[in-house]
Amino acid sequence: MRKGFPEVIFGDGKSPEQIRSIVEALLKRSDRVLVTRASPEAYAAVRDGASDARFDETARTIAIDRRKQRKTRPGVLVVCAGTADLPVACEAVVTAELMDCDVERVYDVGVAGIHRLLDQLPALQRARVIIAVAGMEGALPSVVGGLVKAPVIAVPTSVGYGASFGGLAAMLAMMNSCAPGIGVVNIDNGFGAGYLAATINQIHDE
Amino acid sequence: MRKGFPEVIFGDGKSPEQIRSIVEALLKRSDRVLVTRASPEAYAAVRDGASDARFDETARTIAIDRRKQRKTRPGVLVVCAGTADLPVACEAVVTAELMDCDVERVYDVGVAGIHRLLDQLPALQRARVIIAVAGMEGALPSVVGGLVKAPVIAVPTSVGYGASFGGLAAMLAMMNSCAPGIGVVNIDNGFGAGYLAATINQIHDE
Amino acid sequence: MRKGFPEVIFGDGKSPEQIRSIVEALLKRSDRVLVTRASPEAYAAVRDGASDARFDETARTIAIDRRKQRKTRPGVLVVCAGTADLPVACEAVVTAELMDCDVERVYDVGVAGIHRLLDQLPALQRARVIIAVAGMEGALPSVVGGLVKAPVIAVPTSVGYGASFGGLAAMLAMMNSCAPGIGVVNIDNGFGAGYLAATINQIHDE
Amino acid sequence: MRKGFPEVIFGDGKSPEQIRSIVEALLKRSDRVLVTRASPEAYAAVRDGASDARFDETARTIAIDRRKQRKTRPGVLVVCAGTADLPVACEAVVTAELMDCDVERVYDVGVAGIHRLLDQLPALQRARVIIAVAGMEGALPSVVGGLVKAPVIAVPTSVGYGASFGGLAAMLAMMNSCAPGIGVVNIDNGFGAGYLAATINQIHDE
Amino acid sequence: MRKGFPEVIFGDGKSPEQIRSIVEALLKRSDRVLVTRASPEAYAAVRDGASDARFDETARTIAIDRRKQRKTRPGVLVVCAGTADLPVACEAVVTAELMDCDVERVYDVGVAGIHRLLDQLPALQRARVIIAVAGMEGALPSVVGGLVKAPVIAVPTSVGYGASFGGLAAMLAMMNSCAPGIGVVNIDNGFGAGYLAATINQIHDE
Amino acid sequence: MRKGFPEVIFGDGKSPEQIRSIVEALLKRSDRVLVTRASPEAYAAVRDGASDARFDETARTIAIDRRKQRKTRPGVLVVCAGTADLPVACEAVVTAELMDCDVERVYDVGVAGIHRLLDQLPALQRARVIIAVAGMEGALPSVVGGLVKAPVIAVPTSVGYGASFGGLAAMLAMMNSCAPGIGVVNIDNGFGAGYLAATINQIHDE
Amino acid sequence: MRKGFPEVIFGDGKSPEQIRSIVEALLKRSDRVLVTRASPEAYAAVRDGASDARFDETARTIAIDRRKQRKTRPGVLVVCAGTADLPVACEAVVTAELMDCDVERVYDVGVAGIHRLLDQLPALQRARVIIAVAGMEGALPSVVGGLVKAPVIAVPTSVGYGASFGGLAAMLAMMNSCAPGIGVVNIDNGFGAGYLAATINQIHDE
Amino acid sequence: MRKGFPEVIFGDGKSPEQIRSIVEALLKRSDRVLVTRASPEAYAAVRDGASDARFDETARTIAIDRRKQRKTRPGVLVVCAGTADLPVACEAVVTAELMDCDVERVYDVGVAGIHRLLDQLPALQRARVIIAVAGMEGALPSVVGGLVKAPVIAVPTSVGYGASFGGLAAMLAMMNSCAPGIGVVNIDNGFGAGYLAATINQIHDE
Repeated sequence: MRKGFPEVIFGDGKSPEQIRSIVEALLKRSDRVLVTRASPEAYAAVRDGASDARFDETARTIAIDRRKQRKTRPGVLVVCAGTADLPVACEAVVTAELMDCDVERVYDVGVAGIHRLLDQLPALQRARVIIAVAGMEGALPSVVGGLVKAPVIAVPTSVGYGASFGGLAAMLAMMNSCAPGIGVVNIDNGFGAGYLAATINQIHDE
Repeated sequence: MRKGFPEVIFGDGKSPEQIRSIVEALLKRSDRVLVTRASPEAYAAVRDGASDARFDETARTIAIDRRKQRKTRPGVLVVCAGTADLPVACEAVVTAELMDCDVERVYDVGVAGIHRLLDQLPALQRARVIIAVAGMEGALPSVVGGLVKAPVIAVPTSVGYGASFGGLAAMLAMMNSCAPGIGVVNIDNGFGAGYLAATINQIHDE
Repeated sequence: MRKGFPEVIFGDGKSPEQIRSIVEALLKRSDRVLVTRASPEAYAAVRDGASDARFDETARTIAIDRRKQRKTRPGVLVVCAGTADLPVACEAVVTAELMDCDVERVYDVGVAGIHRLLDQLPALQRARVIIAVAGMEGALPSVVGGLVKAPVIAVPTSVGYGASFGGLAAMLAMMNSCAPGIGVVNIDNGFGAGYLAATINQIHDE
Repeated sequence: MRKGFPEVIFGDGKSPEQIRSIVEALLKRSDRVLVTRASPEAYAAVRDGASDARFDETARTIAIDRRKQRKTRPGVLVVCAGTADLPVACEAVVTAELMDCDVERVYDVGVAGIHRLLDQLPALQRARVIIAVAGMEGALPSVVGGLVKAPVIAVPTSVGYGASFGGLAAMLAMMNSCAPGIGVVNIDNGFGAGYLAATINQIHDE
Repeated sequence: MRKGFPEVIFGDGKSPEQIRSIVEALLKRSDRVLVTRASPEAYAAVRDGASDARFDETARTIAIDRRKQRKTRPGVLVVCAGTADLPVACEAVVTAELMDCDVERVYDVGVAGIHRLLDQLPALQRARVIIAVAGMEGALPSVVGGLVKAPVIAVPTSVGYGASFGGLAAMLAMMNSCAPGIGVVNIDNGFGAGYLAATINQIHDE
Repeated sequence: MRKGFPEVIFGDGKSPEQIRSIVEALLKRSDRVLVTRASPEAYAAVRDGASDARFDETARTIAIDRRKQRKTRPGVLVVCAGTADLPVACEAVVTAELMDCDVERVYDVGVAGIHRLLDQLPALQRARVIIAVAGMEGALPSVVGGLVKAPVIAVPTSVGYGASFGGLAAMLAMMNSCAPGIGVVNIDNGFGAGYLAATINQIHDE
Repeated sequence: MRKGFPEVIFGDGKSPEQIRSIVEALLKRSDRVLVTRASPEAYAAVRDGASDARFDETARTIAIDRRKQRKTRPGVLVVCAGTADLPVACEAVVTAELMDCDVERVYDVGVAGIHRLLDQLPALQRARVIIAVAGMEGALPSVVGGLVKAPVIAVPTSVGYGASFGGLAAMLAMMNSCAPGIGVVNIDNGFGAGYLAATINQIHDE
Repeated sequence: MRKGFPEVIFGDGKSPEQIRSIVEALLKRSDRVLVTRASPEAYAAVRDGASDARFDETARTIAIDRRKQRKTRPGVLVVCAGTADLPVACEAVVTAELMDCDVERVYDVGVAGIHRLLDQLPALQRARVIIAVAGMEGALPSVVGGLVKAPVIAVPTSVGYGASFGGLAAMLAMMNSCAPGIGVVNIDNGFGAGYLAATINQIHDE
């Protein structure tokens, strides 16, 4: 994996045993490993060989960080509308944290309740990079983008039904945002968003 | 045409002469006629035979109303983001007006400038029916829907480029709105929105 | 939730225990709660803590209404073609009823048996708002729209196979209806249709 | 061309001169030639070399029939909703006539004005094969299919805008018709519908 | 159901008990009943109350015919490429037979083995109506259409994977056939094809 | 450009002057240049500076070959159905010839006239590589693929209308061919097919 | 099956017993049989009757080759990015081997780690035909195509999630490759790629 | 416009006179104005009233900057494959420059000529933010993303034909990139990419 980043395993479709053996192989050459889309069963298998593995049930991630010391930097904020989008939002949080960001969370604010979002304006405007996660009509990044100077990473989720077509509606909405300064990642790609945010946040310190 | 409504002609693809002769035929059995997607040339042709025809250049409509008296009712509000959506918004206005609604206009408010929209909160909350017109990511109806009790008619427009796919992105976003109480009409269908709004607004007086 | 409406929970993908605890939390701040896409198991869990919860098996809804008194108003009619569309139609009924509408039901009328639909003309023309639910070719709202003065809320369903593409065919048909006065909600969104209908029906009494 | 049918030329994208020379070549081996999607200019060019060529301006067809005698049979009926669909409907009529069918026309009946359609019930039920042409929501074949015993050939047209997507909405609707006994041809394919109808109608006499 | 045809039940998604009770209700007003997409379990349930029900395992149909006498007519032929398309082809056969057609079967001929198809030329040219069933690239109707005078009903199937997109590729191919005289039904709609073929075949005898 | 191939310019959207100056620049480092999608005007401009440029009006190509000697090899055959597909077929021919292939042409054979195709069986079976060009339902490569041992390069064209969706129908059909041994290139990409065929044909001599 | 190739069975959706009996039937007329998309259970069933059947667990293939002698030829190379694409890559390998190719494998090289790919340049440039397998953005064939003279067969896989839409994204990317000399097969169609490669590779020896 | 950024006008579809009057209005409240998709005619009109307007013919932009002093910062690099993508790439450059970035350009490097790209490795690895512009298969951002630590902004362009579907193929490829750290903007949205890059680059100095 490029950039000295933790090795990453996409857990979906792999058996707990497969994940365990890949993790063990990676730990031989890396001190940070991340498994996304991981089940509790996969965690149980991994923990057998790596007792310091941490499981985030909402994010569905297994993370191992064996570095002696790490220095974190603030600046990343993750905002999403509701409980259904939380797995993707939390995957972004875990990823950015493993890449040494302190991550601020603003959950439970949606475009249909704009005042709750405006209540968070100070936090939003304090952030250096914002990850905005939304399913259904995918409007959150546009509204957030109009409120801040920071770059916004938009993550469409597959939350929705019918004409959401698995997240396509949210993705198209985000691609067409009337607010500039927005970059979009794949549907449900919390990892990619966290990674990109951390990459941007590092610029500050170089 | 059902419902004692003015006869309607979709002007796109018809020659000025064709439009003129259809208008003249309709005027024999109706005292209200509306032409949508009308060009200045079509207006010139129609006016020759019907000097009381009115042309709205932005809405691209020709309207004729020969009723002796009419009684209007307030309640309809049309909101849209910007100049590019105006033709569709104005088509909705003209249609609702011809169906005896006083129409309030709130133009130039978009989701990326949420404070300008909030400045219009009193007007929005006063309305009995709201028509929200938006292209690109189509998020305006969701935000408006979260601010009012009135039913919202969402009109996607073909404004945009690239992944807007001729208004598909906005239409899908509106179908997936997280705010309830929203009904969607066809892309660029200002007429349909104005018609539906007037139909809803009439309930009040029956 | 906006507008003094009952709180709503989308039950799909949530465990009975999750639904139960959300319901209990909501009941602390609201006297009306609605769960859509609810299973019998979810109902069993909810009923444990809220013995006044009512389950509608066809609509797949759990409804709780703890208001001391309520005043209903007539005016909403739900029409659909057949048994396969009933879950969506009934979800609309339950929603509108919880929002204080008396709802008339006209089931089992389809466009391929036009005379059965015409037999219901008096009921259709009496209604103030009509919800037309249809899958497959989605033609019912167009035919109904041509018969009445009232606004029509069109609900496409995912009933069908092959080129219905999960309700896309019905949704596109409804967006392109040749009858004006029609607003469309998301595929299978009975809740949204019932909500919008109740919102429109309330205008009458304000 | 199979089946002893008149030779057919798709005129779109061919110059008048190209069409003229193809027509002349075909007339050497066939006594019937049909040009579809033909312009007045193409007709002028063809007529120079074939003075018996007939041009149908609405259908946009050039037809030449040099047979000494022909025997026609009744049974084909073409039904469509309105003026915008007429070019496709007329192309079907011209094609079926050139294949020796007497064709009955029922224009100006749409699903949003169901009573006008029902007024034509005797004609519809008399036909042996029906061609139903419709754009927008494409519901006409479903309604007609529910009223008759005859096979129905459904022709979607590209009439519409926005979410009609060039006739896709109508085509999908027709593929999903809840009335059985319906076969669909390509968007705007009046020729194909007329050809199929004539082929079916011939069975009667063999 | 229109046209004196057997009542039809779409079995998919209905429980054996539901199917049984619908069948019993229908048998009170009709002497012919057809269940499509039926499982062996559904058949077991139906047979309990109707011992004369016949199950076709490949076609997945349950058929009951209680007419005292019936007169069949020849003329319908069903052609398909291979074993994977057989369920759809057989559904068409069962339907047409229940509508009093003698049905000739030509299975196991595909466009990639054109000589096997040409071996069947006499049978193909003898037929009055042909049903051509094909998945994947859906080319069979085009080739058959070029060999016969009879009308061809094309049935796309969902057989295939990847870019077949559930039968969309075959459906589009059939809509665009270069051979005229072809009408297309929905993906996997063997019933609709059999019904349409029988309707066409009946013309001969009226 | 890789592989010692002639430099290639995609002429569409470039002015004659732009094409001329690119051609002149390329001729300084290459002895073979090909312009595709070239207009007569572009040819006139190019010829001014390079009098040995050859223009193929049907293929819409400008070709310059300044090699002192060249050795051609047989083996490539291009097959297509009709006049509308000729520009794409000829672009493939010109490309393969410029890459030193002798190209056999089999035009005017379509799947709806299978016997004309079978008349060409000796030529088809003699070829080492076959390019099969087809629009509309795109079935030709499947039929050809079933008749020969050679690899088949399938080229979908945008010939068609309505549900051909600019060649998408043909492309999907070719991707789903039931005959193995077929590779597909982009819609209307005659150049790519000719290039691939020449690349395959060269294997023979290396 | 054409071309003296082993008979092929698409195992997906067939029961072990069905596969066994088809294999046994085919072995009576062919000395080579290939089953793709085969499960371990299918292998167990087949092995009962054909003890010389070989199962490749990654490729999910069962292969039987009863020829007395065979002569292989080098020239085919299969390249893919990672473990998720291996089943498709291995299906291509098994197919080409059964058609008498010696196949070189270059696994674990992706476009995001271009140096690992360049390390394999000698092997890539030695090959006569290359099969490039890739999911997600499907860029591998373009990069490989720019490095070699040999024809490249591109195989999109369904590996990915969200906007990969089951391999559609990779397929479209490959159809639009900026490198010429690339032919694309269906999504996940390892068999087709191996077959086409072997067909091309045979040209060399004829 | 948010963020103290120059006011922006999307020039497409506006007349020179409209653009001129909007520019003049904006100059009253802002010292920086940018017009995208501007024609030479629009420039002539704008220059009449604002002689300091600069026109970039390739980028199709009009830029006015009336600030007394500005301080630029290095860090942004724009990379694209070829001449056809230049208008989009240059629009990104002009935008970022107007937002005070020094922009490095790396044009004419594509994935099919990987060595030319690798020659630019020092420049790529020096950049703090990279904008990668690509049409057709859209693979450039994936390859670049694998070579650098900096965040990559991917811009799909509508360059291509056939199955590029107006840039959809490139957009989907970029959404599915196997390299992490990539954010995607709308098709042909050079402005958005430049804006986002400048926003990211500013983090460094705050």
